[in-house]
Amino acid sequence: MKDIYIGIDLGGTFIKSGIADADGKILSFYETPTECGQGVEHVAENISAAITRLFEDAKSNGFAVTGIGLSIPGFIDSANGTVIASDNIRWYGVPIKKMIAERFGNIPVSIENDANCAALGEALFGSGEKRKNCVLLTLGTGVGSGIIINGKIYSGNRSAGAEVGHIIIHPRGKKCTCGGRGCLETYASATALICETKKTVKKHPDSLMAEVGADKIDGKTAFDYREKDKYAAAIVKKYIDDLSIGLISIANIFRPEAIILGGGVAKQGESLTGPLNRKLKESIIYAHSGPEVPVICATVKEAGMLGAAALNMQF
Amino acid sequence: MKDIYIGIDLGGTFIKSGIADADGKILSFYETPTECGQGVEHVAENISAAITRLFEDAKSNGFAVTGIGLSIPGFIDSANGTVIASDNIRWYGVPIKKMIAERFGNIPVSIENDANCAALGEALFGSGEKRKNCVLLTLGTGVGSGIIINGKIYSGNRSAGAEVGHIIIHPRGKKCTCGGRGCLETYASATALICETKKTVKKHPDSLMAEVGADKIDGKTAFDYREKDKYAAAIVKKYIDDLSIGLISIANIFRPEAIILGGGVAKQGESLTGPLNRKLKESIIYAHSGPEVPVICATVKEAGMLGAAALNMQF
Repeated sequence: MKDIYIGIDLGGTFIKSGIADADGKILSFYETPTECGQGVEHVAENISAAITRLFEDAKSNGFAVTGIGLSIPGFIDSANGTVIASDNIRWYGVPIKKMIAERFGNIPVSIENDANCAALGEALFGSGEKRKNCVLLTLGTGVGSGIIINGKIYSGNRSAGAEVGHIIIHPRGKKCTCGGRGCLETYASATALICETKKTVKKHPDSLMAEVGADKIDGKTAFDYREKDKYAAAIVKKYIDDLSIGLISIANIFRPEAIILGGGVAKQGESLTGPLNRKLKESIIYAHSGPEVPVICATVKEAGMLGAAALNMQF
Repeated sequence: MKDIYIGIDLGGTFIKSGIADADGKILSFYETPTECGQGVEHVAENISAAITRLFEDAKSNGFAVTGIGLSIPGFIDSANGTVIASDNIRWYGVPIKKMIAERFGNIPVSIENDANCAALGEALFGSGEKRKNCVLLTLGTGVGSGIIINGKIYSGNRSAGAEVGHIIIHPRGKKCTCGGRGCLETYASATALICETKKTVKKHPDSLMAEVGADKIDGKTAFDYREKDKYAAAIVKKYIDDLSIGLISIANIFRPEAIILGGGVAKQGESLTGPLNRKLKESIIYAHSGPEVPVICATVKEAGMLGAAALNMQF
């Protein structure tokens, strides 16, 4: 009987639910409405209905369900199985692990923050071999992160760690929302990139990027114009330089099997990872004698659901 | 029958050997010569003799030996049990785990780098409760480090990680021996502190520190004079500011249960940790809502031997 794992990716709008095997192969997959406006009990019923359907799928295929994992947005106490605060689904102090476990008897239930689950899914299933030690950065509104150590999510004391976006890269630099100064996030988020692009266009109306229109400038603009506009090229160069300072520190601290980039800016693919990889190859410690630290982009579809399923996998 | 653990701390001059229980209590302890000039086989015999004596101690006290751990200086492949290169004891490519395991039958044997073992010993036994997630920094010739995650040593891909001294704190700063620029080590090592003190005295002969004599200036000098000499005070302030940049990043990445400082500069105790703790309390992420990250000094006697013993402990 094949061992399989149930993964639930709970979002504000949809519940994605699936069955995966230990290699991250998806054997069943559904998307149903969350309906979080109808209260906690109702959402728990919706989750349970999704799980029940997956149990039926498993049974009819002769699979043994080994565990149920839930990916949930917000601040999660995974040790106690409680959602402390999730603005996204409007849950505060919900003992969801217990609520689900009561319905499904002896099957282990695990819960985790959604960004952490996505990181785990990417680390384990983003390439042929399972990467058990990885750092993921999401270059979006902020710089989110996930740390995977020995195939498990590491989130620090009371889950307050894994804030890799708050490495200080310029000690006398820009103020950060965290209260600190010069954090990686203030230079490497999509927000920072857009802000820099807008400022440049305002300061240099002769920039070709001006034709986009100030309110349509986004995280792609500077990358789109970098080969024909010197101002765009300078923005991209500075963005990659700043990001590389953080990545070199991450590589020296963790010597991970990969650094995986996600979020909007990571859509640039090789334009972003090419120069970053060249910088890391030159500048990390033991650059020539030690193992490489490839910088790659996130590729896994349904990383959140797969990461949730992987919470119960043993390595 | 009480479970106990054998720890061997192999140094260039002495082999420290002992028995510890799971709480880090030392039940037997010996110090015997390494005699590394007499070759690998001879040293292995000396280690084995020390272990044999500990087995006798264990037997006469009714203890059950659960594992043997070895702390060894140099570059260690702990997964394969091989000393890749240790200039200190002049070992290159020595399969010491196998050599010891052959002599003692079914008892598990583990080997690790000495700095990592000391870090593990400090993390687990440096306070009443066992700290399972800690970062240790040794402020000495360089800035060494050890990362303890879930009660185990984390050293990255092919043990090339845990180089926390090579976080970049000043991207356009001083050249580092690692090939990079602006690493924490170039500002926070005892070497950097001494260099800064010597430069200051040369530049300002009116500094009270001049009375020490250029060749007697050490890592203590600036701390000793900081209350009566403005130049000394400025050096100490700058040293602590720079160190704090690295510690804030470490706290944000790991949210460890503690950051533990060892090495020569850590002898300053509260003069060092006091201002660092104040800075971390202000500047780390979730400074007020999240758990504190205390900065403390290393305190464990025989941390290397205890860390070696702890390699076989289960948590």
